[in-house]
Amino acid sequence: MKQAKWIWYPGEFECFHHMLLSMRRQEKGCDYPCVWPVARPEVSARFQKTFTAERDGSFTVVTHGKGMVRLGNALRRVNEPIAVKAGTHELVVELFDLQTFPSLFIDSGILTTDESWTAERYDAKQVSAACEPAFCSASDDPSVFPFRYRELTPVSVEPIENGVLYDFGQEQFGPVDITIPAYASITLVYGESREEALDPDNAIIRETLSSSDAPTRPGRAFRYIAVSGDGAEDVRLQARLEYLPIEDKASFESDEPGLNDVWALCARTFHLNTREFFLDGIKRDRWVWSGDAYQSFMISRYLYNDPSVTERTITALLGKPPYRRHVNTINDYSAYLIISVWEHYEATGRLAFVRRVWENVRALYDFILSRLDENGFAVRRDGDWIFVDWGVLDKEGPVCFEQIVLWQAHRSMARLCEVMGEDDVYTARADALKEKILRSFWDEEKGAFIDSFTSGRRFVTRQTNIFALLYGLVQGEQKRKVIENALLTPDLPAITTPYFKLYELLALCEAGEVAAAQDYVASYWGGMLREGATSVWEAYDPTQTGSEHYAMYGSPYGKSLCHAWGSGPILLLCRYVAGVKPTGVGGKTFRVAPAPGSYRAFSMAVPVGDGNIVVTYDAPTVTVCASVPGGVFFDGKTETPLKAGKTYSFTLSGS
Amino acid sequence: MKQAKWIWYPGEFECFHHMLLSMRRQEKGCDYPCVWPVARPEVSARFQKTFTAERDGSFTVVTHGKGMVRLGNALRRVNEPIAVKAGTHELVVELFDLQTFPSLFIDSGILTTDESWTAERYDAKQVSAACEPAFCSASDDPSVFPFRYRELTPVSVEPIENGVLYDFGQEQFGPVDITIPAYASITLVYGESREEALDPDNAIIRETLSSSDAPTRPGRAFRYIAVSGDGAEDVRLQARLEYLPIEDKASFESDEPGLNDVWALCARTFHLNTREFFLDGIKRDRWVWSGDAYQSFMISRYLYNDPSVTERTITALLGKPPYRRHVNTINDYSAYLIISVWEHYEATGRLAFVRRVWENVRALYDFILSRLDENGFAVRRDGDWIFVDWGVLDKEGPVCFEQIVLWQAHRSMARLCEVMGEDDVYTARADALKEKILRSFWDEEKGAFIDSFTSGRRFVTRQTNIFALLYGLVQGEQKRKVIENALLTPDLPAITTPYFKLYELLALCEAGEVAAAQDYVASYWGGMLREGATSVWEAYDPTQTGSEHYAMYGSPYGKSLCHAWGSGPILLLCRYVAGVKPTGVGGKTFRVAPAPGSYRAFSMAVPVGDGNIVVTYDAPTVTVCASVPGGVFFDGKTETPLKAGKTYSFTLSGS
Repeated sequence: MKQAKWIWYPGEFECFHHMLLSMRRQEKGCDYPCVWPVARPEVSARFQKTFTAERDGSFTVVTHGKGMVRLGNALRRVNEPIAVKAGTHELVVELFDLQTFPSLFIDSGILTTDESWTAERYDAKQVSAACEPAFCSASDDPSVFPFRYRELTPVSVEPIENGVLYDFGQEQFGPVDITIPAYASITLVYGESREEALDPDNAIIRETLSSSDAPTRPGRAFRYIAVSGDGAEDVRLQARLEYLPIEDKASFESDEPGLNDVWALCARTFHLNTREFFLDGIKRDRWVWSGDAYQSFMISRYLYNDPSVTERTITALLGKPPYRRHVNTINDYSAYLIISVWEHYEATGRLAFVRRVWENVRALYDFILSRLDENGFAVRRDGDWIFVDWGVLDKEGPVCFEQIVLWQAHRSMARLCEVMGEDDVYTARADALKEKILRSFWDEEKGAFIDSFTSGRRFVTRQTNIFALLYGLVQGEQKRKVIENALLTPDLPAITTPYFKLYELLALCEAGEVAAAQDYVASYWGGMLREGATSVWEAYDPTQTGSEHYAMYGSPYGKSLCHAWGSGPILLLCRYVAGVKPTGVGGKTFRVAPAPGSYRAFSMAVPVGDGNIVVTYDAPTVTVCASVPGGVFFDGKTETPLKAGKTYSFTLSGS
Repeated sequence: MKQAKWIWYPGEFECFHHMLLSMRRQEKGCDYPCVWPVARPEVSARFQKTFTAERDGSFTVVTHGKGMVRLGNALRRVNEPIAVKAGTHELVVELFDLQTFPSLFIDSGILTTDESWTAERYDAKQVSAACEPAFCSASDDPSVFPFRYRELTPVSVEPIENGVLYDFGQEQFGPVDITIPAYASITLVYGESREEALDPDNAIIRETLSSSDAPTRPGRAFRYIAVSGDGAEDVRLQARLEYLPIEDKASFESDEPGLNDVWALCARTFHLNTREFFLDGIKRDRWVWSGDAYQSFMISRYLYNDPSVTERTITALLGKPPYRRHVNTINDYSAYLIISVWEHYEATGRLAFVRRVWENVRALYDFILSRLDENGFAVRRDGDWIFVDWGVLDKEGPVCFEQIVLWQAHRSMARLCEVMGEDDVYTARADALKEKILRSFWDEEKGAFIDSFTSGRRFVTRQTNIFALLYGLVQGEQKRKVIENALLTPDLPAITTPYFKLYELLALCEAGEVAAAQDYVASYWGGMLREGATSVWEAYDPTQTGSEHYAMYGSPYGKSLCHAWGSGPILLLCRYVAGVKPTGVGGKTFRVAPAPGSYRAFSMAVPVGDGNIVVTYDAPTVTVCASVPGGVFFDGKTETPLKAGKTYSFTLSGS
């Protein structure tokens, strides 16, 4: 027999765990639910399979929910053996689960559950059942996320006033098992910094506990944990790391000072944020943000080259129609999510995933359309947040940035509908919008796009023009102008968030300014390392000192010290320095065009498609070996096909 | 201060209890979930109130869920006292509930929860919070439906083979508290009939229990309960009636033989089916069916004149978009639901209710539209059930009956949109459809509507033509033909279900054939009473004997012996015999036009609007007294205005 797997209706696993995750935020002792609509799993589902038993036998429908089994016309009970005669049978399992979501498992000699079953949410549409590789035994429970755990040993345990301070040496995330004597009443304060752990009034996570509380405290971010109060000295505490066993497929080594540490810092940060879904950061809201996830998808493609977390994240962010609000309430984030589906397909070729989410993608796109203005421009409606970036943008009337991401969303739908075999109503919309963007927002005198034509201020921001470059809205002379007037000029307001900084660095690299991006990596990420960071911070300002670094959003420890968007150097190094880019769907074809920039030597492994590319540079020679066919080496002028398994050496003229 | 009430987002109470109800069916020891999509409450909601505290004080946000309180910019915990200074405060409560639905309660000297709060499901649209009068103390729990209970005493306890049979004298519904000794292992069999209770293999509800099972068995229908097995004689059993304290506003008394018993039987049956929502029957599926509910709404308007159960039922049946399937999977049932909203508004004038469900009504209507054919006809799409009735209809191609209810749904939307102050796009659709129905389905030679123009069979059924009469699709000469050729003729197949029989009786009464309807009441309901019925059966065939009466749907006890649709005589007697009909919205104007038919004497109280009308008949004199103004007496020729509180006597010429 095939491997038996727990099965459920597609998307319900992600929906359920996203719901739990969205309700887990805590702040100052309060439970802090997510501030946008969060989808809930369906209460019931039907599963069907026609099977042939070679001999008489029996099977048990294992479920944590309730329901019944229809074997032909007979009703049978779940969780009890069901006898069947040899022959072909129609089996229908009708399940409901008031707590979690309907799922089942059968593992017998005559029948097993797996993706070959169909699932239905009582809408008369049968689809393939879904499963996750972690759930393949009767004792598993799909409502418990399959994290792994490792006990953590503190690097120091230090007496503090009325208690003890544990230092686990670096940023961690996980549960804490705590044994509290009956006479004790203590306060637990979690700190990403020592200062936070020692400041219960201002720390984000604190709780007061006694022996009657659950001995396992939920997974949280910390480097430090302070235990204080009556009997604190008698409290026993064991912290555990909660993690996913996901492996890196990319690697980087270099003699450049501090650069290996930057890579390790970024990879470590990214792993800590790789959980049920890609998180923005592990301490504070721990919600799933589409803008942050969009960057994580790009980084993940290089670091992990594993579709699982990306697909879970897209599924969770899509939630369920009817859509009443933009994703995370943000207009741009709805567009990113649609673009992400296309980019994920392009990177992986996983059409089955597109099929699974297509109904929701179309519904989200229709929601976006339903809120455009009479010109087809994205505008702010009730409940919308035109975010773009924390920087100063001119957001009066239709905002150029929103039109650019909308244009890319139209184009993504056009490409997706092509692979889905549907009629393309999207390209015409994209083309019409492009024409309107150029007519309404292009300022010939400034040689760049302005944010708003409504305000009359003709304000030019880097953000808008960077996306015009990245999405290829401009070409030729117009592109040259954008680079000159909005990317390389010092005259415009600087981008201050690492979130948008990543896009700026990508644009710099696309414009050939790899060395400038490398300089920034050395100063920004190198600077954080020198400040003692053990994971990448949400933001870093080299002019600040001490605990100034920890403040954000008006709170002394409001800043997350482990933020996924800080892992961008992995993307920059793989895509531009090693220069590995897929050129065909699923990475079946790809180009290797290393741009060492200011580096003199490095060695990288970079995954693409089903293989990996080893790129070693020792100025001026680059050595390339691809494990799979389909690659070409490009030195800026000439393309050289790469045979799988063969090592090639090239001299880079520009270096 | 005002009365404090538990509050929640509108519709969530109904949604939650409908979800529970839909998953409670059991059959042959199996849990049998509902076979259409059932909506689940949102996991989170936000509640807001701006209030002015006259003095310093405190309040506690009581909730069974989790969440937090924003008092201005400060975060506070739920379920703990929150101090406030005198002055005006902005209060926001953010709640989630993974088990039930978010709800809260505040009852302090400075602040209480009630409908003046706003609720939001994080869609940036604030609506008035909802509440139910039963939940007004901190110890209440809106996730527990507020039934009342009364202990039941068996009329006999009789030894049976290996156990005991309890007879509770008449049909009941409720939980059973059972005490089972440690050495016992018993089977509990519920029977609406003695035969069912004594036939564990074929009874619908049976369960095997030991002392480790919960001592309170869930609410179920029964007249008999058999306890058998080892130690059965030592089992203690206490059954309780579970009911709603809803009072009858209509009453009937007459010297006609058996007629008072018919009324009592109908009223008792209707009460047993009046629960969270109007059920079809209390034994078998106990799901909420829109077609059955539509009749219950009509009966309820006369028997209770209380909007609460109707509004809960409509809300539950509407569920939540996106609609992927017709209501109960049945095309006609979606239409009935829309028609029900209009008829409920017309009967009560409760615009606030229409406002509350309007978004869902429109979404359901749009779903109906999305499945029409190119001519605007309702047709069978994947997953649809063109039900109409169990009788033989010609269902090839578009079915006339479906077009008639669709026409009425269009007209209901037109009327609803008018009271909602929206533009009417519906009347034109109704008019166009009427024209097409007359062109496609009217058969001049047969002088009636045919079921199908596709099949070429020109099949005429009573069902289709009855609805053409009831909804006023035909007038004048065409109406006369329909009455003659499809209602009064014996040549067409008889209607065999009590479900549709009610519509036939209504149509007979509308056509002036009250005596014929009365004859049917006497034979059908009277017949059941003579068979010993203690509540109205799902169906009754006088040619059957003994336990033949209990079989249905291929199962020996498949028939429900307590079915709401059997309570129709209440409607017939109030609307036609007493002749009380509202003529204006909310019953502000009404007409009293008694039609005693074959009855010689009766006395009835019939509610209308905010009052009631007492109609007493002693041939040939009818005495009428209305407690409210707005009424007219109509003797078939002349209208006489009725002053409130004044008693009028008229001589009925026809009697």
